[in-house]
Amino acid sequence: MSITTYSRLDIDKAAVLFVDHQSGLLSLVNDIAPDEFRNNVSALVSITNFFKLPTVLTSSMESGPNGPILPYIKDNLSPYAYVQRDGEINAWDNEKFRNAIYDLVKKEKRTQFILAGVVTEVCVGFVALSLLHEKQYNPLMKDIEVFVAVDASGTSSTLVRDAVWNRITKAGAQGAELMTWFGIACELRRNWHPEEDNHNVAMAGFAQLVADHSTQYTNVMSSYNAAKNIG
Amino acid sequence: MSITTYSRLDIDKAAVLFVDHQSGLLSLVNDIAPDEFRNNVSALVSITNFFKLPTVLTSSMESGPNGPILPYIKDNLSPYAYVQRDGEINAWDNEKFRNAIYDLVKKEKRTQFILAGVVTEVCVGFVALSLLHEKQYNPLMKDIEVFVAVDASGTSSTLVRDAVWNRITKAGAQGAELMTWFGIACELRRNWHPEEDNHNVAMAGFAQLVADHSTQYTNVMSSYNAAKNIG
Amino acid sequence: MSITTYSRLDIDKAAVLFVDHQSGLLSLVNDIAPDEFRNNVSALVSITNFFKLPTVLTSSMESGPNGPILPYIKDNLSPYAYVQRDGEINAWDNEKFRNAIYDLVKKEKRTQFILAGVVTEVCVGFVALSLLHEKQYNPLMKDIEVFVAVDASGTSSTLVRDAVWNRITKAGAQGAELMTWFGIACELRRNWHPEEDNHNVAMAGFAQLVADHSTQYTNVMSSYNAAKNIG
Amino acid sequence: MSITTYSRLDIDKAAVLFVDHQSGLLSLVNDIAPDEFRNNVSALVSITNFFKLPTVLTSSMESGPNGPILPYIKDNLSPYAYVQRDGEINAWDNEKFRNAIYDLVKKEKRTQFILAGVVTEVCVGFVALSLLHEKQYNPLMKDIEVFVAVDASGTSSTLVRDAVWNRITKAGAQGAELMTWFGIACELRRNWHPEEDNHNVAMAGFAQLVADHSTQYTNVMSSYNAAKNIG
Amino acid sequence: MSITTYSRLDIDKAAVLFVDHQSGLLSLVNDIAPDEFRNNVSALVSITNFFKLPTVLTSSMESGPNGPILPYIKDNLSPYAYVQRDGEINAWDNEKFRNAIYDLVKKEKRTQFILAGVVTEVCVGFVALSLLHEKQYNPLMKDIEVFVAVDASGTSSTLVRDAVWNRITKAGAQGAELMTWFGIACELRRNWHPEEDNHNVAMAGFAQLVADHSTQYTNVMSSYNAAKNIG
Amino acid sequence: MSITTYSRLDIDKAAVLFVDHQSGLLSLVNDIAPDEFRNNVSALVSITNFFKLPTVLTSSMESGPNGPILPYIKDNLSPYAYVQRDGEINAWDNEKFRNAIYDLVKKEKRTQFILAGVVTEVCVGFVALSLLHEKQYNPLMKDIEVFVAVDASGTSSTLVRDAVWNRITKAGAQGAELMTWFGIACELRRNWHPEEDNHNVAMAGFAQLVADHSTQYTNVMSSYNAAKNIG
Amino acid sequence: MSITTYSRLDIDKAAVLFVDHQSGLLSLVNDIAPDEFRNNVSALVSITNFFKLPTVLTSSMESGPNGPILPYIKDNLSPYAYVQRDGEINAWDNEKFRNAIYDLVKKEKRTQFILAGVVTEVCVGFVALSLLHEKQYNPLMKDIEVFVAVDASGTSSTLVRDAVWNRITKAGAQGAELMTWFGIACELRRNWHPEEDNHNVAMAGFAQLVADHSTQYTNVMSSYNAAKNIG
Amino acid sequence: MSITTYSRLDIDKAAVLFVDHQSGLLSLVNDIAPDEFRNNVSALVSITNFFKLPTVLTSSMESGPNGPILPYIKDNLSPYAYVQRDGEINAWDNEKFRNAIYDLVKKEKRTQFILAGVVTEVCVGFVALSLLHEKQYNPLMKDIEVFVAVDASGTSSTLVRDAVWNRITKAGAQGAELMTWFGIACELRRNWHPEEDNHNVAMAGFAQLVADHSTQYTNVMSSYNAAKNIG
Repeated sequence: MSITTYSRLDIDKAAVLFVDHQSGLLSLVNDIAPDEFRNNVSALVSITNFFKLPTVLTSSMESGPNGPILPYIKDNLSPYAYVQRDGEINAWDNEKFRNAIYDLVKKEKRTQFILAGVVTEVCVGFVALSLLHEKQYNPLMKDIEVFVAVDASGTSSTLVRDAVWNRITKAGAQGAELMTWFGIACELRRNWHPEEDNHNVAMAGFAQLVADHSTQYTNVMSSYNAAKNIG
Repeated sequence: MSITTYSRLDIDKAAVLFVDHQSGLLSLVNDIAPDEFRNNVSALVSITNFFKLPTVLTSSMESGPNGPILPYIKDNLSPYAYVQRDGEINAWDNEKFRNAIYDLVKKEKRTQFILAGVVTEVCVGFVALSLLHEKQYNPLMKDIEVFVAVDASGTSSTLVRDAVWNRITKAGAQGAELMTWFGIACELRRNWHPEEDNHNVAMAGFAQLVADHSTQYTNVMSSYNAAKNIG
Repeated sequence: MSITTYSRLDIDKAAVLFVDHQSGLLSLVNDIAPDEFRNNVSALVSITNFFKLPTVLTSSMESGPNGPILPYIKDNLSPYAYVQRDGEINAWDNEKFRNAIYDLVKKEKRTQFILAGVVTEVCVGFVALSLLHEKQYNPLMKDIEVFVAVDASGTSSTLVRDAVWNRITKAGAQGAELMTWFGIACELRRNWHPEEDNHNVAMAGFAQLVADHSTQYTNVMSSYNAAKNIG
Repeated sequence: MSITTYSRLDIDKAAVLFVDHQSGLLSLVNDIAPDEFRNNVSALVSITNFFKLPTVLTSSMESGPNGPILPYIKDNLSPYAYVQRDGEINAWDNEKFRNAIYDLVKKEKRTQFILAGVVTEVCVGFVALSLLHEKQYNPLMKDIEVFVAVDASGTSSTLVRDAVWNRITKAGAQGAELMTWFGIACELRRNWHPEEDNHNVAMAGFAQLVADHSTQYTNVMSSYNAAKNIG
Repeated sequence: MSITTYSRLDIDKAAVLFVDHQSGLLSLVNDIAPDEFRNNVSALVSITNFFKLPTVLTSSMESGPNGPILPYIKDNLSPYAYVQRDGEINAWDNEKFRNAIYDLVKKEKRTQFILAGVVTEVCVGFVALSLLHEKQYNPLMKDIEVFVAVDASGTSSTLVRDAVWNRITKAGAQGAELMTWFGIACELRRNWHPEEDNHNVAMAGFAQLVADHSTQYTNVMSSYNAAKNIG
Repeated sequence: MSITTYSRLDIDKAAVLFVDHQSGLLSLVNDIAPDEFRNNVSALVSITNFFKLPTVLTSSMESGPNGPILPYIKDNLSPYAYVQRDGEINAWDNEKFRNAIYDLVKKEKRTQFILAGVVTEVCVGFVALSLLHEKQYNPLMKDIEVFVAVDASGTSSTLVRDAVWNRITKAGAQGAELMTWFGIACELRRNWHPEEDNHNVAMAGFAQLVADHSTQYTNVMSSYNAAKNIG
Repeated sequence: MSITTYSRLDIDKAAVLFVDHQSGLLSLVNDIAPDEFRNNVSALVSITNFFKLPTVLTSSMESGPNGPILPYIKDNLSPYAYVQRDGEINAWDNEKFRNAIYDLVKKEKRTQFILAGVVTEVCVGFVALSLLHEKQYNPLMKDIEVFVAVDASGTSSTLVRDAVWNRITKAGAQGAELMTWFGIACELRRNWHPEEDNHNVAMAGFAQLVADHSTQYTNVMSSYNAAKNIG
Repeated sequence: MSITTYSRLDIDKAAVLFVDHQSGLLSLVNDIAPDEFRNNVSALVSITNFFKLPTVLTSSMESGPNGPILPYIKDNLSPYAYVQRDGEINAWDNEKFRNAIYDLVKKEKRTQFILAGVVTEVCVGFVALSLLHEKQYNPLMKDIEVFVAVDASGTSSTLVRDAVWNRITKAGAQGAELMTWFGIACELRRNWHPEEDNHNVAMAGFAQLVADHSTQYTNVMSSYNAAKNIG
């Protein structure tokens, strides 16, 4: 059993928000290489499923040029809510999206929002800033925290990314963390062995999750297993 | 209608300051590639016009080596004020410039200043720090906020840019945001459909504005329109 | 009048081939930044028009995901031939395309083919290699030369670009040149003043062409004109 | 039907050699990002299967630290020969490997060897140079050509890669081509529609192959299909 | 004797924590070049020994794919504690590790923890955040400070590194410093000559330590010694 | 006359500290290209002279491998104090250096310390942190501010630079600014024309100073002067 | 005396051509950093003077936006010929320029042309290709060789540079060399001590020339001299 | 026994030339990171010793600023000849150096010269070109080949490196190869097991050599050995 903690991601508190990972918008992503970005996003999908976290999918005018949500996201998740926005650029401005979040807080006791999206400065940044605003002014939301999955969020250049990180960091002096998929997975999992506080999630599955999304670790595991058999 | 917000850019509150985008000074810009920089600056011009934001143009000794303001800025804007400074390096030290800003606050109720210029550490940095200073000491200015359009501001190296961002971030713990043109456009527009709170700005024009300044999004739109016609 | 020359691009001999610059395929281009690439391609369009060079446009399955030819190419050119290929990946394998080239050689006395396309290793590389093959085996084509406009051709990475340049260089020890839009324009123009051997093309138009596609040169010209007026 | 060709890759002539893609050696690859490299190698595996090309797998001391062949290679191929070398660093020095190649030439009429491996300067470079040597001195091998799949071959730095490309280029003035997976696939496929000269390979499968290994093209296809349904 | 100080690293207060520098995990490090990283880590080992700082080694499932601790760490240190964790991802969750730290505070009066590990966002980040949490809530730990040896800590990309630095910086507004091996060595040493407050550590040894891990400084010393002999 | 200001660099308050720019230590600088670094440092020398700022030179064991102070610094300055330290790594630990600073404060009313040195994390970072410490604890020093001339300070890598910037930023939430030579020059000069508050410094000299250290601006000026003569 | 040689640069045979290093054109140079480029060009000026090589300066429409020749070139050379071209883009097309070259061959027995200019693909490339053409067709010129000073020639991107290097390399299989200023200086100088075959050029001056243009070597020399004096 | 070969490096034919790896000149090396460069050079030293290859060390004015040969080269080799040149920049111009090479050819039957040095374009380039010249004109030398160890040779920038590679490649169409230390080691070794044609060199030593100079491979071996013991 682990003892006292900093405010860590917790299987019982976390929820995942996928904002506007749509096929047309993906053509704007240039700060992370295409194969790496696909891997990062699908790692976050795997994490969502592995830890059975409730998730909200939202998209912006899917029937327009923005296009449909990436199949490897949509086909692999059973979302708590799926909000197809008609015109609001900031997902928070959509009542159904807000209600889905409020329900996650009220009914599901979720206060840790893992947030990813395309493009980072709009679809992620605006929602993150709105959530942090709520945290200050809306009593229901006072305990929420925002964990931006920065490597599953993409935009047009590193300059743009640096600017939005700067903005979120300033706004989130309390309550916002910049994380990446591997750190999120590890902070949720905590211990390779099943324990009470990580809900007896199976170790084998977790190792598989890491291997599926880290080609280097897959190689290490292949070498290890082969060598062990020889030994 | 959107509900409670963080301090967002607002069509009724924003004004744009273009500081020293002059042909001679442009040769000092090396942190953003030339074609990309021209696109970013002209995107900010388009935003200014599209949202009918009042704008102040200022330049430094245009008849000297600094040269005239870039034609694609000057020829496309009807400025609220156009201040040709004779010697002051920091535009804020020019009385006409200060008065133009004070008028924007007093008469036009503008409190959100979108600021861009060349070179970033001098023409943008000095003005940003002066505005933040005013915010603290001048009661008239106490509600102002500074939004630096960092991708429409250029300088000699990323080291120099990093240093001035650091300086502005520290000074602007309250009241300064680093943004880029696409985020500025989206935060002002808020909703693709005409609504009360975005002044019934036409959607078609906004899509055109984005397409005019995002070559990738133009391609996505071309593909979309073609496919829709086939379908 | 210029005296003896290396095999230079010549207004009377050159033709331009645009291969598969289609909106969907553009999303594969990652070796040149988007704004710079758009500028390079439209510079080649301007060159084609300015020097009144015959041009062939070809595309691959436009009604499929590859999408339509970029409007800033198609809308600005009056092509000698426009070949919409149905299935052939290498444009040379399309009879209409081959016949267009043969006609350019036979009827228009064109032997210098300026070639650009997306993606470089397929749409440009295959055609370049096919043309060089023809040069050796087809008597009609024995005098042709291939000038690849490498900055108006794009692909997924610099590794891929390096590999196809290597392939073309080897194949074209005789008869293939790697060029870029500014060099092409200058080699065709030869002299800023109208002369017999550059067909009395107007100087003003050429300066405009360069300025339209070189943002740095535009700035230099702005400064120059302003200073001259002051002087 | 396509007419006369440069020496193109041909479904009837090509064979694929995978040299030492072993889990331990992969840790030496640093010139291509891990996710991109995995994608490139598995694209070559898919190409091998899609076009039913005979393939030789070889490895170096798999039971030692070099480790086993990557499962996504070995588990997905039915090799013509699988040569586990005991000590020879250059695969060509292994008699079984040589005989496999000779058999491919004699019995299978294969003369186009697509070659990939880890690390590029040793496992690929040495074999490429040996094959080119054979081409000159061994009458059986006089018609062979070497196509190095450079993006499915990895090494420790771009400096090392540049040096081995230089070496192969010099040796292979006749008979060696540097290619990448997408160009290989396209040169083998030639036409999206089934034709005699590409053995009526199904078009649907080829589009799938490309989409499986080009995340950008997948997005373009998603957008296209969605838009067509809307249209 | 030096006078009043900022909170500097002090030979009497510092301890070093090496977290999960294991052979398998090293294959995940991609943000620092391999030879440079090995040098940085072994520089930290040399510093630990030179200043006789107590050190804790910890590892995660060494008998699995993560592999053994790097020999050049393990073989060169006599650790105060060596904690082989079985399943806890965050070393702080391991009771023996916590107790080792508590003992360093209580028995050894150590309050400055120099922390390095692989990968940075998990093995370093989680421990840093846990220590900073302790600092606030555990009276025993209220005086501790965390000095992250960022160049002896590695991860998969600069994006991931930037994110974890951001996280630690925010958490450690009081009590966390990002340092690098050379700064650590100099801040501990303070004066090239033996003095009371740096425990009469021999100067010759310190110069050797720097030279052993700075190839440029070695060259400067070689030149210097040669020139002096000539002079 | 300029009106109320943020805490700007002021000719009457500024002093410049050059710490350990020695020929041997220069071989450790790798984060700024050699020609650019030499230019930045000599620009700071020119600024010091142009504005007649008092300056302190200090060096560390010049007769050892660190070598002499760069001639283009030492030969061009008449220092207020020149402190050759024998062993103290942090210049602040040297009594003569501290006294020179104290004298600058007491006798010369200098409170703005422009600080540059090699290497950044030691020679600059340690002094900056010590000065900020003094600011808090030493009443004499309570009004001082530290302006790090980051482009005239060099170290071994951008990682090291990022870490020390982080450290100084955190320590200097009040009273430390990261600046670069051009911003320093402009903030001191304020107005191109002679005015009371910039001590009637001659404009021609300032333009020359900028031109001497900005090769791009020199070119702009050459073009301007030529065009004006033509006009 | 040195024995048999490859075709080395020779003080008696070399001449230097500076083509279009004009203040306006310099704003197009982006492939080499500004301070480094200025250093490289002025190094070539120093070499020209040090070895008393005849030199031709040429410029293109100096009274237009291209601007005057850089003062640090023009003011420091006494050219054999100074050709101000009115309209010819390729300097070779100007009769006076050609005659200057022919005179250098006929009267001065110069056959080794060191060539530098801005921009590389036009002002350098066109002249290099013209000279190589002459070499083949003009008996007077049959012995000439072209040595492109590639680091004193600049253009808009590395892509453009790579393309023109490719073009010159192909054309100059016989008779063109890509060199840089330090190699040029060393190949001309051959021996640090005065000898017959390097015309008793003074050693001290050569060391000074190298030090003036290599800031690193200056540092090494400073350290050396200091240490020798101590020794 | 291996069968017919391309012209491979051979233990009986190879010799190694270290040219001017001197402590002062090392400060000019900027195209390879310092730790990596030291590793590459010492790998070549280890190879020389491991395969007992005769080696020539040469240096240029060691008692001047160029400084002494790097101790990790000089102290670890027993050179066939050690030539301290007094003034010749090109080592080939030194009679003792030439005689050492001639002796290696005549007496030791060495025809494969592995060449490394600092800086690449002078100390390596000039010698390589001189050797290739000799190959053509000196009957004694007609069978020699030059293998440039490009990663154990360093210079000031990648531009300079690219230029000298270009020059050597052109000169060495026959008889020059660009290699790197790992390829050199493998081509000399050929087979991990002792065989007649690699002189029964011990396998263990070779594995150690590779591990000593490849930190990644060391990690793979550590993991392997650990896993085997567990298995």
